[in-house]
Amino acid sequence: MAQPIGRHFLQIPGPTNVPEQVLRAMSAPTIDHRGPEFASLTLDLLEAVKPVFGTTGPVVIYPSSGTGAWEAALVNTLSPGDRVLAFETGHFATLWREMAENLGLEVEFVPGDWRHGADPEAAADRLAADREHRIKAVCVVHNETSTGVTSRIAEIRRALDDAGHPALLLVDTISSLGSIDYRHDEWGVDVTISCSQKGLMLPPGLGFNAVSEKALRVSETAGLRRSYWDWKAILEANRRGFFHSTPATNLLYGLREALRLLDEEGLSNVYARHLRHAEATRAAVRAWGLEVLCLDEREHSAALTAVVVPDGHDADKIRELILDSFNMSLGAGLGKLKGTVFRIGHLGHFNDVALAGTLSGVQMGLELAGVPIDQGGVAAALRVLTGKAGA
Amino acid sequence: MAQPIGRHFLQIPGPTNVPEQVLRAMSAPTIDHRGPEFASLTLDLLEAVKPVFGTTGPVVIYPSSGTGAWEAALVNTLSPGDRVLAFETGHFATLWREMAENLGLEVEFVPGDWRHGADPEAAADRLAADREHRIKAVCVVHNETSTGVTSRIAEIRRALDDAGHPALLLVDTISSLGSIDYRHDEWGVDVTISCSQKGLMLPPGLGFNAVSEKALRVSETAGLRRSYWDWKAILEANRRGFFHSTPATNLLYGLREALRLLDEEGLSNVYARHLRHAEATRAAVRAWGLEVLCLDEREHSAALTAVVVPDGHDADKIRELILDSFNMSLGAGLGKLKGTVFRIGHLGHFNDVALAGTLSGVQMGLELAGVPIDQGGVAAALRVLTGKAGA
Amino acid sequence: MAQPIGRHFLQIPGPTNVPEQVLRAMSAPTIDHRGPEFASLTLDLLEAVKPVFGTTGPVVIYPSSGTGAWEAALVNTLSPGDRVLAFETGHFATLWREMAENLGLEVEFVPGDWRHGADPEAAADRLAADREHRIKAVCVVHNETSTGVTSRIAEIRRALDDAGHPALLLVDTISSLGSIDYRHDEWGVDVTISCSQKGLMLPPGLGFNAVSEKALRVSETAGLRRSYWDWKAILEANRRGFFHSTPATNLLYGLREALRLLDEEGLSNVYARHLRHAEATRAAVRAWGLEVLCLDEREHSAALTAVVVPDGHDADKIRELILDSFNMSLGAGLGKLKGTVFRIGHLGHFNDVALAGTLSGVQMGLELAGVPIDQGGVAAALRVLTGKAGA
Amino acid sequence: MAQPIGRHFLQIPGPTNVPEQVLRAMSAPTIDHRGPEFASLTLDLLEAVKPVFGTTGPVVIYPSSGTGAWEAALVNTLSPGDRVLAFETGHFATLWREMAENLGLEVEFVPGDWRHGADPEAAADRLAADREHRIKAVCVVHNETSTGVTSRIAEIRRALDDAGHPALLLVDTISSLGSIDYRHDEWGVDVTISCSQKGLMLPPGLGFNAVSEKALRVSETAGLRRSYWDWKAILEANRRGFFHSTPATNLLYGLREALRLLDEEGLSNVYARHLRHAEATRAAVRAWGLEVLCLDEREHSAALTAVVVPDGHDADKIRELILDSFNMSLGAGLGKLKGTVFRIGHLGHFNDVALAGTLSGVQMGLELAGVPIDQGGVAAALRVLTGKAGA
Repeated sequence: MAQPIGRHFLQIPGPTNVPEQVLRAMSAPTIDHRGPEFASLTLDLLEAVKPVFGTTGPVVIYPSSGTGAWEAALVNTLSPGDRVLAFETGHFATLWREMAENLGLEVEFVPGDWRHGADPEAAADRLAADREHRIKAVCVVHNETSTGVTSRIAEIRRALDDAGHPALLLVDTISSLGSIDYRHDEWGVDVTISCSQKGLMLPPGLGFNAVSEKALRVSETAGLRRSYWDWKAILEANRRGFFHSTPATNLLYGLREALRLLDEEGLSNVYARHLRHAEATRAAVRAWGLEVLCLDEREHSAALTAVVVPDGHDADKIRELILDSFNMSLGAGLGKLKGTVFRIGHLGHFNDVALAGTLSGVQMGLELAGVPIDQGGVAAALRVLTGKAGA
Repeated sequence: MAQPIGRHFLQIPGPTNVPEQVLRAMSAPTIDHRGPEFASLTLDLLEAVKPVFGTTGPVVIYPSSGTGAWEAALVNTLSPGDRVLAFETGHFATLWREMAENLGLEVEFVPGDWRHGADPEAAADRLAADREHRIKAVCVVHNETSTGVTSRIAEIRRALDDAGHPALLLVDTISSLGSIDYRHDEWGVDVTISCSQKGLMLPPGLGFNAVSEKALRVSETAGLRRSYWDWKAILEANRRGFFHSTPATNLLYGLREALRLLDEEGLSNVYARHLRHAEATRAAVRAWGLEVLCLDEREHSAALTAVVVPDGHDADKIRELILDSFNMSLGAGLGKLKGTVFRIGHLGHFNDVALAGTLSGVQMGLELAGVPIDQGGVAAALRVLTGKAGA
Repeated sequence: MAQPIGRHFLQIPGPTNVPEQVLRAMSAPTIDHRGPEFASLTLDLLEAVKPVFGTTGPVVIYPSSGTGAWEAALVNTLSPGDRVLAFETGHFATLWREMAENLGLEVEFVPGDWRHGADPEAAADRLAADREHRIKAVCVVHNETSTGVTSRIAEIRRALDDAGHPALLLVDTISSLGSIDYRHDEWGVDVTISCSQKGLMLPPGLGFNAVSEKALRVSETAGLRRSYWDWKAILEANRRGFFHSTPATNLLYGLREALRLLDEEGLSNVYARHLRHAEATRAAVRAWGLEVLCLDEREHSAALTAVVVPDGHDADKIRELILDSFNMSLGAGLGKLKGTVFRIGHLGHFNDVALAGTLSGVQMGLELAGVPIDQGGVAAALRVLTGKAGA
Repeated sequence: MAQPIGRHFLQIPGPTNVPEQVLRAMSAPTIDHRGPEFASLTLDLLEAVKPVFGTTGPVVIYPSSGTGAWEAALVNTLSPGDRVLAFETGHFATLWREMAENLGLEVEFVPGDWRHGADPEAAADRLAADREHRIKAVCVVHNETSTGVTSRIAEIRRALDDAGHPALLLVDTISSLGSIDYRHDEWGVDVTISCSQKGLMLPPGLGFNAVSEKALRVSETAGLRRSYWDWKAILEANRRGFFHSTPATNLLYGLREALRLLDEEGLSNVYARHLRHAEATRAAVRAWGLEVLCLDEREHSAALTAVVVPDGHDADKIRELILDSFNMSLGAGLGKLKGTVFRIGHLGHFNDVALAGTLSGVQMGLELAGVPIDQGGVAAALRVLTGKAGA
């Protein structure tokens, strides 16, 4: 079976399987981005997008990738030479650090083993030590897409509060938004960074910044040069339902439909579904006798699971075999994890039978690749799904 | 989970899961059905459709359901009061008998138990007994969609040949075409009846008649009244790339794409895939400790599997629970099988992981419904799929 | 400009330009035609379709062309050898006669010149003469698609009533439904025949019969053999939201959307728009110095305009030139009108600027073809559209 | 007619009418942006996009608007405090100046009347005066979308060459690319900036930089801080068919199809078509007795025409009336032209009959708005289109 047969299973941790309703919505004709119909679409969208961020404040939407939304968060709030505190949770945290440095910031990077989230105690220590408040922002990746580890944002917030530290809290929710419970307002996040192609179930092409009042205030004097990313001009245009530069109209159509789907299911149901699927996936991994990359029970991602491949096996070869044999894409190990882990995306537009199909594909692939596993993985997952996990 | 989440699994034995390429092809703007672009489309299609029927002769395409294509086969070849020989293989064979009677034909209906195909020996006996050749046509359902039993057409042909009987051979391939090896020319079939929504992976709306030279000749004097279904007018218009009445243009776009997909995979690969999936499905059913409806090993359908539900359980309630819990549709027991069997469609646009998801949904549904099963069904199917069935 | 550039203008009198919303609706995945979601769709549709027919009675929907819907009307209501009264209004009336004869009916065909509608006085005469009530049905084409002439159905009804004649009234609304005011109930029509690809703005593939109580009653004893077209079985299945044989699901999705669009605009606005566009078109034709085929001011079609080409010019060559030069399709002269008329479709999903573009294409094409015309056609049409026709 | 009827005419100078093929291409499922299928797509696209820029060098593609592509051009090539020479050709040139200043550059802005292109003589003077080569880049808008004036890039290039000035030449082709002949290599442009939603016939969401070798070299030492826009990282990833941050996959599908359409028509035919439509539009405007904004015959835009509204009339009210009455969008006067001009977009996926419809809508709208015009505009345009302009 050397060519793709049947429907592709896109089980990378984003882009995710886009619902056909969203794809169809996106295929409506492009309209005048300065006309009344567009204004009405925008005004509705800018409200409808807030609950998924857990905010009542403004959300800025960019034609960009998630990486662009990172850049936007930094250039709107910081000045050249500013220090930011960041955590080496994995590949994307590392990329974010590089970006910050490229933009002229100084990064205090708390080292990590890529198997844990951002350490709230380390945060507390660093902040307490920063008596002069040289740290202007704390940058945390909520859900490390490269490792399947979810950091505890509320505890990072507490560290800031306990230290009485005025730094902004910037959080990357690129692979958590719309999949994992998230609370911009309640957790006192200043800028929440996200994008379209994960839990929001859209193709890539939209970046988001949810912005606190404090962040807005700080942005007025932030010294990094910016134009495309500038919140002020966008928010001003947004008031009348427009954008500062031409928006990605057809992706906005898709966003409207995707938000409708999330709302129809109910966000709490969406989050519970992801938790359940993640639990079933871990049950499968353990039944196979393999190791989940994430080491802290409190930090397992509900969006993806990174699986450690036994010594002597190449995770990328296994993924390639699974793609060729089963028309299913899995996530590669990134950065220093290349070849040693693969990642199963179980986020977005997904359900129990699709998860069962996914895990079956992984199990068959591992077997065909000669990885020594116990065959009971899928069965263990099904037991979790039917609520018989403990029986 | 009371509302549909994720992608629907349409695992009825047709309509089947339509590939997104086919759906998109169908959404192209309708064109002038009397213009040059249309003529070119038609002439290409009328050739491209032949291999899937195993014929080099003409194939007539109707805007109709498969039922319409049945009617077309009868009214083009028979005269009022003509006798036809048919076989009670299940619900659809029974419906076809009713149609023949409604159209004024006399049906000699060989009784059956709905668990076997058309009996070649019974055919031989009846044909031998018909010394006056009062039987004008033998009507066989190749793959009984209601039972998952595939009749042995080549053996029916042999019965006709052995008896030196001139009756036409009419075969319903509604749920086999494009899924199960079929040979109109080689098997000496006179009219092959089919439709779009099963192995051809299209939505419903097209009916087909592949027509032998003998059938064409007979149609010149056949006495049943006809107009819409009349082959002659259609074939004449087809010569220049047109149709006698307005064709279902957008479904023809879909047909072009679906035939391209079948050709890309290769028909022999398509048939082998269906056989393999059917074998895996039966392995699951048996591992659950349940009974496959089909009783003859030579006649298991490669397109669907009908599963007998244990006494005291209502198959329709199980299907309803599976639809509600897992967003997956299974086929109901039809006619006298209502409530006692459900049918798993594993035909059309499908692959190993989708089958694994499907069988997982059935297994979980049976468990949730309280049907006493052994849990090893999915595992047994995966063993077949990875080629370890005998290990 | 020898290849298609820009968006095609499909200005034949059907199939018409399908709205993108309808095409997108049709590209949704096919669902189980025996499941609850489908039942809900059907029950809604069977109600929503009634207003466009002007009926509160049942409407039967077939997977078929309009020709199929003709056949359905005849075989459900008539018996072999029955006499029907029909009118030679043009090509389609002639085809309908042929069909009736093929089905074993006797047709009394009132001759016509293809430039007038069915003559109510001739109808009155024939019905009065038929003292024995041998005429079982009167068959009228509401809008002759081949000529652009609309027959006066209410007056035909009056002829029946005045004669106290019990014949059924069967009306073909194939190119009028959804474009021209039509009243099945008020005009006492017994079977209204229609299809999807004209005023309903869908691709071809659905046929319709709106059925009066009298027609239903008559169908119980009508002797023509039928199965696929049988109203009884379909209406029975419809009661629970299903169909007798597999319906053309994706076209039904399109129908739902098309009916929504008609309802949103308002049927009376839809009819007024068509009248206005037809008037503007005739203004253009006359300003060009050409002749409209229809000769009776009371009978101009609001859906299309057939234009007589001056002697010495071939209408088909002109159409071909327009297709090649302007990517616009016009309707050919059919039957005995071949080469001497072309037809401008101005029905369905259409607006003032699209009409202006259409007429501009015709004007430029006539000029390029060397047909001697006055250039003021488009200008005259624009005057009608801006309400300055009389100024 | 207060609600949208029929197909919308999107006659703003971008976003333009997206071909249905492109919309359908975009609705294919999103794929793994790190997988082999994606790599193959990217490698093909990066070659296929070059001819439309007139380059054999690299083209960088961003998920962004055209504004983002401006920013990319500046931050990759310039250093804080660098001086750039720019020309006040209209609203977008003015916005670009603002951006440059926001990013910390010093802009020498040659004043203009918004009715002429960038003045090559003024360029020559400024460059000659800049003996110390403080000007690091010359920024020109090829086609001013706000005015319908096309600057003569080849002459600006000559001014640079004649002055022996080493400044880079940055050209905005946002509303010219794919509509107006453009030659990145031949004209010695260093960065060509563009986006998807105009002549490329896509929805908005992609930004482009075509980059000369010189620009690439300069970028290695350019001091403006950058990360998202950094060419180096992107070009490096492109080599293997990937991107530095997640690309807008579905827009890339659309780009492939749009480039195929342009190639099928042939770029020289595409440019000739736009010239012809622009000429016909100006003929209409002049026949109405109105003034075209552009004052230099050498600089008329082939993509759009800005029309000056007579004193006492509000261009925005006229546009609103046309939108409400004819379901057609026209471009507003921007910046200081607000209310005094409207803009007719005649670029992208367009043909003669669509242009005739567009101009008819404008003519009817002007009349309904009470603007005193001569009615002969559409007729004058049709004369140009049929090649009889001079007859």
